[in-house]
Amino acid sequence: MRTVVVTDPPRADPADAQTLASYGVATVHEALGRTGYLGPEFRPAWPGARAGGTAVTALCWPGDNLMVHVAVEQCRPGDLLVVATASPSTDGLFGELFATALAQRGVRGVVLGSGVRDVADLRATGFPAWARAVSAQGSVKATAGAVNVPVVLGGQRICPGDVVLGDDDGVTVVPRADVPRALAAGQARLDREATNRAAFQRGELGLDVYGMRERLPELGIEYVSHREWSREQG
Amino acid sequence: MRTVVVTDPPRADPADAQTLASYGVATVHEALGRTGYLGPEFRPAWPGARAGGTAVTALCWPGDNLMVHVAVEQCRPGDLLVVATASPSTDGLFGELFATALAQRGVRGVVLGSGVRDVADLRATGFPAWARAVSAQGSVKATAGAVNVPVVLGGQRICPGDVVLGDDDGVTVVPRADVPRALAAGQARLDREATNRAAFQRGELGLDVYGMRERLPELGIEYVSHREWSREQG
Amino acid sequence: MRTVVVTDPPRADPADAQTLASYGVATVHEALGRTGYLGPEFRPAWPGARAGGTAVTALCWPGDNLMVHVAVEQCRPGDLLVVATASPSTDGLFGELFATALAQRGVRGVVLGSGVRDVADLRATGFPAWARAVSAQGSVKATAGAVNVPVVLGGQRICPGDVVLGDDDGVTVVPRADVPRALAAGQARLDREATNRAAFQRGELGLDVYGMRERLPELGIEYVSHREWSREQG
Amino acid sequence: MRTVVVTDPPRADPADAQTLASYGVATVHEALGRTGYLGPEFRPAWPGARAGGTAVTALCWPGDNLMVHVAVEQCRPGDLLVVATASPSTDGLFGELFATALAQRGVRGVVLGSGVRDVADLRATGFPAWARAVSAQGSVKATAGAVNVPVVLGGQRICPGDVVLGDDDGVTVVPRADVPRALAAGQARLDREATNRAAFQRGELGLDVYGMRERLPELGIEYVSHREWSREQG
Amino acid sequence: MRTVVVTDPPRADPADAQTLASYGVATVHEALGRTGYLGPEFRPAWPGARAGGTAVTALCWPGDNLMVHVAVEQCRPGDLLVVATASPSTDGLFGELFATALAQRGVRGVVLGSGVRDVADLRATGFPAWARAVSAQGSVKATAGAVNVPVVLGGQRICPGDVVLGDDDGVTVVPRADVPRALAAGQARLDREATNRAAFQRGELGLDVYGMRERLPELGIEYVSHREWSREQG
Amino acid sequence: MRTVVVTDPPRADPADAQTLASYGVATVHEALGRTGYLGPEFRPAWPGARAGGTAVTALCWPGDNLMVHVAVEQCRPGDLLVVATASPSTDGLFGELFATALAQRGVRGVVLGSGVRDVADLRATGFPAWARAVSAQGSVKATAGAVNVPVVLGGQRICPGDVVLGDDDGVTVVPRADVPRALAAGQARLDREATNRAAFQRGELGLDVYGMRERLPELGIEYVSHREWSREQG
Repeated sequence: MRTVVVTDPPRADPADAQTLASYGVATVHEALGRTGYLGPEFRPAWPGARAGGTAVTALCWPGDNLMVHVAVEQCRPGDLLVVATASPSTDGLFGELFATALAQRGVRGVVLGSGVRDVADLRATGFPAWARAVSAQGSVKATAGAVNVPVVLGGQRICPGDVVLGDDDGVTVVPRADVPRALAAGQARLDREATNRAAFQRGELGLDVYGMRERLPELGIEYVSHREWSREQG
Repeated sequence: MRTVVVTDPPRADPADAQTLASYGVATVHEALGRTGYLGPEFRPAWPGARAGGTAVTALCWPGDNLMVHVAVEQCRPGDLLVVATASPSTDGLFGELFATALAQRGVRGVVLGSGVRDVADLRATGFPAWARAVSAQGSVKATAGAVNVPVVLGGQRICPGDVVLGDDDGVTVVPRADVPRALAAGQARLDREATNRAAFQRGELGLDVYGMRERLPELGIEYVSHREWSREQG
Repeated sequence: MRTVVVTDPPRADPADAQTLASYGVATVHEALGRTGYLGPEFRPAWPGARAGGTAVTALCWPGDNLMVHVAVEQCRPGDLLVVATASPSTDGLFGELFATALAQRGVRGVVLGSGVRDVADLRATGFPAWARAVSAQGSVKATAGAVNVPVVLGGQRICPGDVVLGDDDGVTVVPRADVPRALAAGQARLDREATNRAAFQRGELGLDVYGMRERLPELGIEYVSHREWSREQG
Repeated sequence: MRTVVVTDPPRADPADAQTLASYGVATVHEALGRTGYLGPEFRPAWPGARAGGTAVTALCWPGDNLMVHVAVEQCRPGDLLVVATASPSTDGLFGELFATALAQRGVRGVVLGSGVRDVADLRATGFPAWARAVSAQGSVKATAGAVNVPVVLGGQRICPGDVVLGDDDGVTVVPRADVPRALAAGQARLDREATNRAAFQRGELGLDVYGMRERLPELGIEYVSHREWSREQG
Repeated sequence: MRTVVVTDPPRADPADAQTLASYGVATVHEALGRTGYLGPEFRPAWPGARAGGTAVTALCWPGDNLMVHVAVEQCRPGDLLVVATASPSTDGLFGELFATALAQRGVRGVVLGSGVRDVADLRATGFPAWARAVSAQGSVKATAGAVNVPVVLGGQRICPGDVVLGDDDGVTVVPRADVPRALAAGQARLDREATNRAAFQRGELGLDVYGMRERLPELGIEYVSHREWSREQG
Repeated sequence: MRTVVVTDPPRADPADAQTLASYGVATVHEALGRTGYLGPEFRPAWPGARAGGTAVTALCWPGDNLMVHVAVEQCRPGDLLVVATASPSTDGLFGELFATALAQRGVRGVVLGSGVRDVADLRATGFPAWARAVSAQGSVKATAGAVNVPVVLGGQRICPGDVVLGDDDGVTVVPRADVPRALAAGQARLDREATNRAAFQRGELGLDVYGMRERLPELGIEYVSHREWSREQG
């Protein structure tokens, strides 16, 4: 890995990140054709956390948070820090002191491929964090890594400046170039969902609302009464 | 797998399901001889969720919630939807819109072998859900499956019409034929626990309350003072 | 395994355990040179749990809580019960009735290498518990084990009388002989963190506060503008 | 669980089990509509193992192989022993001495939801075994279970007398009533595969052999040259 | 995800891929600064497998191998097929018939983020395959995906035309642009290892060969005789 | 952790280690009362590996093999190197060059809590290795650890000088003080097994050989014919 700190990457508009965060992770992931979601291993450190920001990335050695310290300096208001490790690690690379430093700089949250600690403090102060583990295991500051290079977390490539969103459902990434599309498609999806929600509240069925009923026979789905089914099963 | 929708299976009495839910998952699982529990992988989407209902089952293709839509139509008041997949999947096959539709039909909750999403909304509206994962990952509606056939979740076979119970300890199933036995044995267990609880609050010991003390020597258990033990360990 | 109950092991001072619990798991683990932490698999049964006590250990057969019953009798006020199994098991070896009995004896909490159950009751009554799983799966009382022998949980050796601490970050152990060092080093660390927190709130950077900035070039870390970086990547 | 030993269950024909084993696990699983497979966690103790027999089932307490001893007596020539545990366990409930006893009785192999040990001996003597783990961890013989009741392994229900098949791809179950269908559909599938294999060896493509090419545009799949694609991606 | 088949991507030289495969996965991963390795979850279907080729990528729906069929047609001699799924799946998306078709086209192997099956046949015919699981679980052909778009496997981004290498240590990717550097640095590393191997065979120590001895005191490492150490531990 | 290298710890007799290795992991683990086994996660790098030696321990930082280099110098003929990490890591801390150096010093094998690499070379040269993972992921040499301090692997405490044994069933540790007992009890167990094996080959049953038959009714086990059982199940 090249041990480099890339400065001043272009960023998406932090206001757009905030708007997308209000749409929610599931909605934005769907709106972009079911892409970008980091998977169920990334969990919020406390329930109700919600944030959206522009990614500053740090690539660390397992058990070593030197590059998190380096990355803090590269953060601006509206950013969200994204921390990956060179190989899998659950160690608690991030805690309350980092949160204090980031909050002071206007950073909106953190996503870690490793562990997070001081979760009682994070909950108390409301600093949003997502991680693969909660772990008190401490770190050294010995080995070089990189800041603001593309990283992969949960099977998703995250580039500096991309929008990263988190809520109770986990974390998703919106590539910087896709932000306008995400805004439009996300709003359209919310509108559609509002219509469908009203239909469901009136007692309509998804089979009809989504026009699936006629496709069921083509797919070979047959309806059988339980009485008949029981007879067939002997 | 046969791609069939079985209609109108006989169901246990939904009132009995409610009573069993009030006993709790651990109590009912114990009362039936330690059977029926789906294991620790099934977690509530929000703390404090509690529900009991009669199972409507859906067997889906991984990443595909077509059969959940089909299953909704088969649900009646007092039911609880149970969703299995043909092979392991954590995708979020169920979210807030489904919960809206089910709540409108008087359905009491959902148990998923896969993932659940929109958990902030489920918590806010109080719709009970248990799942193996929280995941925003979206689904297609492309492949046929089955509704109201027996499914296996967490090593337990669940037939349509069985009682399924969930609380903070997870999920357990009571086969329809065992409901009367579960009601009687569960109530008896609650009574016994109340007696034992009172004894413990008075300072009595389980060794005496459960009559285990005399069996300890037969099992080869010996008591040694720490001083003696330390001397033996060298 | 020798099937023995060791009585009256020497214990650390329960007041010191309480003090260390107030320092927090992460702080104490760090203060002792990043040792003692049981890893991220051990989670509190309810958020906000915090406890510190002197260990009484029980070594059980998987799925069998006979030795938990035996261990209860060995517990004194200020103790914290530690339960290990001879091979991995997630079964719910501990629930509300045990908590009632332990609370009556002044025991401060429980740590289980297996599962815990009745978590709704534990949360309601505020009895602190940490475990690898939440599981309603019940136990038998058939096979001998040991009480107050050294056990290993999460890669850490826990001897009877050691201090065991738990909070939202998990569980850590302080060997009895290390308690004075933990008290001193923990307090020193808290003081240092207060100083650093104030610096971060003023906008200072960890790179400077911890004196790392000058080491970065030695480690081969170079700073490159995004424009230059993009040119190099072609 | 009811602690019962069911004697003399009806069995499928052991010769049919042998024939199905020669078809292979993947072929039979597919032939029955992709049902019955126990999943990727079940691995052979040694590469090249292959067996098919009629199930004798044992349900054990975790870490306790009492019921395996009981089950041996219920085994006949052509049987295959299937061992489940009441909750997850990796302990080595089965080893070379059991294999010696079973081989003497004409039993064709063993499938364990827990662990297996003495794998060097099993490989040397060619006794087929599949398990979730290799583990030397020993067992007690203390707790009652059941023999020849239905068990669930890997999400599949196995009844005594069913055909169980294992090879390098894992383990699958054929319910006794489905054996005739499995024989016919398995042979038909082998024939079809032979035809397709010959086509592939001549250079034909699956898209054409399986008639999928025309469906691709309906599914929204478009072909784009790399040059064009690169231009679009900017 | 865009459902597109990208045709004729530029490829690295297949002869270079072969040379790099002869260097081995560990050597090439190290030579490129410890990058590109897909992690320990990717295992060969049979021991001794070794291959290197130019990537053709397929992105499938979980449990659905439609796009593998589409990808076969895009493969040329010297290629190596790389199969990812939109969300995690262990299903056996690839087996012996696919291997027959690919071998006929001069394809050198396959890497799957999901499962592989027919491993006895793959071993017998010597077709190299790496996968996250061995699984007989069958697939449908229902849902569109993509061919020759970048995919992420094991935290590594693989673009069509990149070199992918596999051996007993797993799988690594060399981006097309890095192939010349990998060839040079890999050969240099092999030469250096030969020198070091000779030194070790003469009894020299890594501490001296790699010049680490003098750094040990700076790192705070002290040497203590066991006698002294025991005295300190009390 | 104290960053110390402890020199010249007392060791068990390497000849005894060899004898115990010939008994096998399962036999020795059983002979010592089912203690010492490191669990099913530790697998041989190649089938058929078998070794026994006196432990030299190394405690490394995750992803950092500096202390393995330091440990090599502390190894003598008859030793077996044991490598733990301060927090979980699968990185390949050990490969063929280390094996060459150790073989030159008469070291009998290696056990790693992390990963191993170059397994094709290890298999070819017959150097025995056990690890939690096979991984090509490379290491740095940056952070201090310890040599010849007690470490915990797989829930077992291993002290320098203890006997460590490995075979196809995994790894077990025999504390130095227990070696005489292990030799005697292991030989006795082998003798007993030979007697039992002969009985099983004559067709006797474990129920009788181990005298369990009479205890079955006490344990509540009843025998029921399948006909009767089916009638009861309805």
